[in-house]
Amino acid sequence: MPRYRLTLEFDGGPFCGWQIQENGRSVQAALEDAADAMGTRDGPAVAAGRTDSGVHAMALTVHLDLAQDLIPERVMSGLNHHLRPEPVTVIEARVAPPDFHARFDARARHYLYRILNRRGPPALLAGRVWHVAKGLDAERMQAAAEALVGRHDFTSYRDTACQANSAIKTLTRLSVGRTAEVIEIRAQAPSFLHHQVRNIVGTLKLIGEGQRPVAFARQALDAKSRAAAGPTAPPHGLYFVRADYSK
Amino acid sequence: MPRYRLTLEFDGGPFCGWQIQENGRSVQAALEDAADAMGTRDGPAVAAGRTDSGVHAMALTVHLDLAQDLIPERVMSGLNHHLRPEPVTVIEARVAPPDFHARFDARARHYLYRILNRRGPPALLAGRVWHVAKGLDAERMQAAAEALVGRHDFTSYRDTACQANSAIKTLTRLSVGRTAEVIEIRAQAPSFLHHQVRNIVGTLKLIGEGQRPVAFARQALDAKSRAAAGPTAPPHGLYFVRADYSK
Repeated sequence: MPRYRLTLEFDGGPFCGWQIQENGRSVQAALEDAADAMGTRDGPAVAAGRTDSGVHAMALTVHLDLAQDLIPERVMSGLNHHLRPEPVTVIEARVAPPDFHARFDARARHYLYRILNRRGPPALLAGRVWHVAKGLDAERMQAAAEALVGRHDFTSYRDTACQANSAIKTLTRLSVGRTAEVIEIRAQAPSFLHHQVRNIVGTLKLIGEGQRPVAFARQALDAKSRAAAGPTAPPHGLYFVRADYSK
Repeated sequence: MPRYRLTLEFDGGPFCGWQIQENGRSVQAALEDAADAMGTRDGPAVAAGRTDSGVHAMALTVHLDLAQDLIPERVMSGLNHHLRPEPVTVIEARVAPPDFHARFDARARHYLYRILNRRGPPALLAGRVWHVAKGLDAERMQAAAEALVGRHDFTSYRDTACQANSAIKTLTRLSVGRTAEVIEIRAQAPSFLHHQVRNIVGTLKLIGEGQRPVAFARQALDAKSRAAAGPTAPPHGLYFVRADYSK
């Protein structure tokens, strides 16, 4: 029963998120079905993070136990064969120690949020960015972001239905940069609260378009109330970039 | 009857190419239908280049005459409104001189070809890259590309059905670079022959994977026979980047 460590890339558009749910197709179900089709699955697939409906992944780490001792290349090609035509790909596979845990062993998670900031709607990046037609000042957004880095009570930035015991989290990095029409917001933390990145982005967007002052992000944080911060940015601009492991 | 200069971005996937054809939906028809829906079209839309079926555009210049004198912002928003949900967007609109011609006035055309070079098939870039699983040596491809730059008879690299009077063209730039798993091939010329970029890419790919020596690209050129060069690369990796104008 070898354990495999897989890295997944997926387009979150057609999925209800990572986790298996009663309504809708999940990425987890797509992967488990592919392993079942190989006739060799021996337990559930566990991911570094449970992405929401519509959220994409560039390199999501997953562990999966198989009943057969296959070389990693065979696991990767077999899973990819059976995953078609769903937009999920195993981009890396290797044998993991039996106690490797994709969720509990992850020391840091990286997210990217992309905004297409121009008048015309996206054609080539449709479903891959949040389209904001009004001009955004990325430097204002970056200045506001700096106040959120560090260890804070993120009650204002987590979903009201978030089930984490504590809202205290350490945001290691939050940066905003612009390349032509695309604004990229990068966030890194040991772990995130539910909707934390999207709620931060929705808040920074209000600041970027001048509806709120730069200090608003920090004021909302201090208020410790979800109502004090901005709205939740849509899921299709968000990417799980990768998780870091010490092993 | 003002003439407008438009810049289009489109996903070529669902289209039979730029030009109106009997079978299949064209980008030209999508744009003209949108202008008709505004009740103001006064002639055909003319593009800097006639892209093939499946080829994308980042910024294709088009001219279009309207029967009404509208401010460019209104032209852009009106066309974009009526273009939905087709994956075509007007990203810029301005008033052009009455004699501006998107095709004849273009001094240079820029193309980009993207190859995803890794084992796993694309998920996020599905339909946007040519997936080549076998490892490619971009430096070999670049060395081969250098021999094609300049004024040559490109008979070996044009489609046998190409209707241009002469196969002699000047390739101003042909460069190959790699960023992680993506190989980008950039080509620039005053004008191109039918399938010229895709036939060059198909040839460079054979060299990159070691099936042919670096000298093969030049040998194929000198043979002045389509059969001497490599196969045609698929359309969905190709992007019309932009055209340059002196006016």
